[in-house]
Amino acid sequence: MGVIVNLEDKRKKLSPLDKMASLIEDDLKAVNQEIVTRMHSPVSLIPELAGHIIAAGGKRLRPMLTLAASKLCGYDGTRQILLATCIEFIHTATLLHDDVVDESELRRGMDSANALWGNQASVLVGDFLFSRSFELMVEDGSLDVLGILSSASSVLAEGEVLQLMTTGDTETSETAYLDVIESKTAILFAAACELGAIVGERPEPEREALRAYGQNLGVAFQVIDDVLDYQAQEDTLGKTVGDDFREGKVTLPVILAFSRGNDEERDFWRRTIEGLTQKPEDLAHAQLLLKKHGALDDSIERARHYSAIAKDALGLFPESEIKQSLLDVVDFCIERAN
Amino acid sequence: MGVIVNLEDKRKKLSPLDKMASLIEDDLKAVNQEIVTRMHSPVSLIPELAGHIIAAGGKRLRPMLTLAASKLCGYDGTRQILLATCIEFIHTATLLHDDVVDESELRRGMDSANALWGNQASVLVGDFLFSRSFELMVEDGSLDVLGILSSASSVLAEGEVLQLMTTGDTETSETAYLDVIESKTAILFAAACELGAIVGERPEPEREALRAYGQNLGVAFQVIDDVLDYQAQEDTLGKTVGDDFREGKVTLPVILAFSRGNDEERDFWRRTIEGLTQKPEDLAHAQLLLKKHGALDDSIERARHYSAIAKDALGLFPESEIKQSLLDVVDFCIERAN
Repeated sequence: MGVIVNLEDKRKKLSPLDKMASLIEDDLKAVNQEIVTRMHSPVSLIPELAGHIIAAGGKRLRPMLTLAASKLCGYDGTRQILLATCIEFIHTATLLHDDVVDESELRRGMDSANALWGNQASVLVGDFLFSRSFELMVEDGSLDVLGILSSASSVLAEGEVLQLMTTGDTETSETAYLDVIESKTAILFAAACELGAIVGERPEPEREALRAYGQNLGVAFQVIDDVLDYQAQEDTLGKTVGDDFREGKVTLPVILAFSRGNDEERDFWRRTIEGLTQKPEDLAHAQLLLKKHGALDDSIERARHYSAIAKDALGLFPESEIKQSLLDVVDFCIERAN
Repeated sequence: MGVIVNLEDKRKKLSPLDKMASLIEDDLKAVNQEIVTRMHSPVSLIPELAGHIIAAGGKRLRPMLTLAASKLCGYDGTRQILLATCIEFIHTATLLHDDVVDESELRRGMDSANALWGNQASVLVGDFLFSRSFELMVEDGSLDVLGILSSASSVLAEGEVLQLMTTGDTETSETAYLDVIESKTAILFAAACELGAIVGERPEPEREALRAYGQNLGVAFQVIDDVLDYQAQEDTLGKTVGDDFREGKVTLPVILAFSRGNDEERDFWRRTIEGLTQKPEDLAHAQLLLKKHGALDDSIERARHYSAIAKDALGLFPESEIKQSLLDVVDFCIERAN
């Protein structure tokens, strides 16, 4: 029965993310449709630019978490569609503003919006998506949701400012680094997951569990992202390798290598990351130093710590396909770096 | 009785804006206090940068409108304090992003935030203030308010993008110009005023009247601002004269002069505004052309049209000191340009 074998082979090849997508397939389609509908504006540049960055794809990980969490909470209404769209709009607005801040030329392997349309348009279209997301929340009509997402947005902005302040500072501590990624990344993961418990009208412990799941997944995800910035190939990561290095971002691998390095090595980090005086061969040398001190491997180990907490947070939910999928996605986020 | 005469002299010198401020003195103090309290963040750069732009002063015209409208509606609670703070935060966020978009070096006569802290910080602190304003709205707890301000924010962002698209386009029509300023300026004036009717729980016609008052005042205000950009002295306006010209913004005076000009003059506008190829003497020549075609005077006349509508909109409110003050402020906005 060759056909069945083929199907099974195919199923095996599904990544945990694809598996999750298949479990929430209809909702995900509805969200993609909603994104297109709701980013509409009579001002043509807005859907054009927003469409570019949203179509550039990304994994839709954050809205998927809202959909999966809603399903985990047994919710069978439709509120999750609009709310997942809000999450994606906030995330996209952040990406647009990030690219301006980082002066990135590439985003997920495509020209970034600011490279194509200029910083000005990126700032303003980001503002639009952000405002639009609040319009959608008002349409949903829950002050609870509005409270979570307005507060998450403030923390997110604080995290971005904090990151700006630590950029180039090789003395940044691991704690300060964690503060930054908890604010700039994990908070939106946490909010995305908590929304599932809200639409499902689940009791406080489940709400908190989903929040903790999202929070810790978010931290693990960002640590791995920062590892990949020194490790991945451009075509698999969809972003330029060495971006963080070139921008002088002080991420966990650098913090570990700096703290474990000798004087000469610290001078190297100070020249390249603080002084931003970089020669073409410096990235390769940085990668060598990271390897020498096991900085990438140990960063991955740190990420595993958070991923374990994320998985345990789901303990109070009964076993189900969607729960397994949420657990598998945590491991998948770590395995990207192996 | 020299003292009394002195007092009267002093009273006569109060501008209508000062007069309004004196009528809502306690509320205005409370708002200024609230602004300082609510822009706080553990991330020190945020209150530092936000404090700079908010302290740079400005007229606080928009929050004053919320306070005055609340008083006009006979509201004697405290909700207007928080809501006026929201309005000022949204406005400040817009200013921060505007300066990045315009690459302005001066804002109200002081170094602009982006000149001092860089574009990156301006974008992110703007995002923070914007998010924070939504947090404050959630604290107020009215979906009605959230609906008005989230929608106003979207329209505002659309207006900014629209302005970006017309920048440098000397063929911009007066209608397109009006679309821009209705979105980017008037919408927040309208929302600021409408909030008064909402906290006062006034019937729909009064809500609409206050909205119309704010909308038309906002249009008149922006037209006059655009006139002043070619007319004012740097020390009275608190911004660089000729900013719009140097940035290639197509405002009403330019639209009128372009449409009334001969071929040679249109070539001048195309070179300077579209091509942004400007010589030091070009601003003076532009001012000469505006004068030749009565473009500034006629722009002021256009503004008067909107100011008349604004004043008539208040017809259904009974006479009172605060109503008179709202009327006087309309005239004052026009008279700035005389």
